[in-house]
Amino acid sequence: MKVLQERIRQEGLILSDTVLKVDSFLNHQVDTELALQIGQEFKRVFGHLPINKIITIEASGIQFAMAAAIALGVPFIYAKKKKAVTLSEAVYSAPVHSFTRQEEYLISISQKYLGSGDKVLIVDDFLATGAALIGLVDIVNEAGAELLGVGCVIEKSFQEGRSLLEKRGIPVYSLARIASMAPGEVHFIDNNPAVDPIQDKAIAAVQEA
Amino acid sequence: MKVLQERIRQEGLILSDTVLKVDSFLNHQVDTELALQIGQEFKRVFGHLPINKIITIEASGIQFAMAAAIALGVPFIYAKKKKAVTLSEAVYSAPVHSFTRQEEYLISISQKYLGSGDKVLIVDDFLATGAALIGLVDIVNEAGAELLGVGCVIEKSFQEGRSLLEKRGIPVYSLARIASMAPGEVHFIDNNPAVDPIQDKAIAAVQEA
Repeated sequence: MKVLQERIRQEGLILSDTVLKVDSFLNHQVDTELALQIGQEFKRVFGHLPINKIITIEASGIQFAMAAAIALGVPFIYAKKKKAVTLSEAVYSAPVHSFTRQEEYLISISQKYLGSGDKVLIVDDFLATGAALIGLVDIVNEAGAELLGVGCVIEKSFQEGRSLLEKRGIPVYSLARIASMAPGEVHFIDNNPAVDPIQDKAIAAVQEA
Repeated sequence: MKVLQERIRQEGLILSDTVLKVDSFLNHQVDTELALQIGQEFKRVFGHLPINKIITIEASGIQFAMAAAIALGVPFIYAKKKKAVTLSEAVYSAPVHSFTRQEEYLISISQKYLGSGDKVLIVDDFLATGAALIGLVDIVNEAGAELLGVGCVIEKSFQEGRSLLEKRGIPVYSLARIASMAPGEVHFIDNNPAVDPIQDKAIAAVQEA
């Protein structure tokens, strides 16, 4: 997604070869117009699938899950992060290890809102280690719902998240894939030819299924 | 907002005379269409003001701040909740006491994104004790920005939040005001005549200012 890559180049703060800050337009201050365009892009990529629900994790996945949900005309659910194990109601939950904070936390979704009839798209802001997304995948599986794909806004392609998801046979599509970065420079992998995003291998796999 | 009151009546779970759960359509699973209508309603009430930025608090304020931001065509910022006092950059911050969890936490907004030129609308999902909203008000003041109003989706009018905000001269508008509730029943205060919401005293005060 060209406009997103441009914004990352212009406004992204690259603090090291692994840390990228995009809080001026994506995950603290949010450029609403860009967020809506991101939703449309997810629709362009996943819109042919019979998705009836989008799920994400609080907090910074919410604006993109909502944008995708607006574009696809479906509701979305955001998994809650809980530290307490005491839960007041029946939930699906999965542990997630945060590498940034070096702590384990639980994410959970109420059993009332996800079940065997659901066809799910997972959306999140970043795909890096994949830890949080694997947690969501586990929840979708536990609920007996069908996972049709994972869509991320920014992917750090030099980390293992994508391969962990693909090993499980999950189609992954990221709107900006970063091959490498260093203060002052960022290199993207161009996997989104405007002419035909469906030729992306992961998406093609969905079509064939 | 009639459609919102109806949904609260139909789907809200009233667990006690103070606890209302709306997680089937507002703050866990989100009905995107209703969220967009909520954004339009905030536009109807606040759209005549020169708002250039909306602020809220993660996580459950995000979908409504975004809906309002879409309707008004402005960006939004969500304050982060931090437990650590160590902050990596210059932020405006305020302590908030959570009555539900009986703990104190810090909310913060980067100084890069809020300043003296900004005209701000605060949006949140619930107005009850007002603790979190007062924290946001303090941040807006600390930033030297101008606060034009507070818009909430649901107000528990039997708690002190509204009066704490109004004591500071802040116009408050809530889309559904609950006078009282008990399991199986909820009573609303009707402050939103469809014909002219501007006659609401708080909004009138803004107009006169």
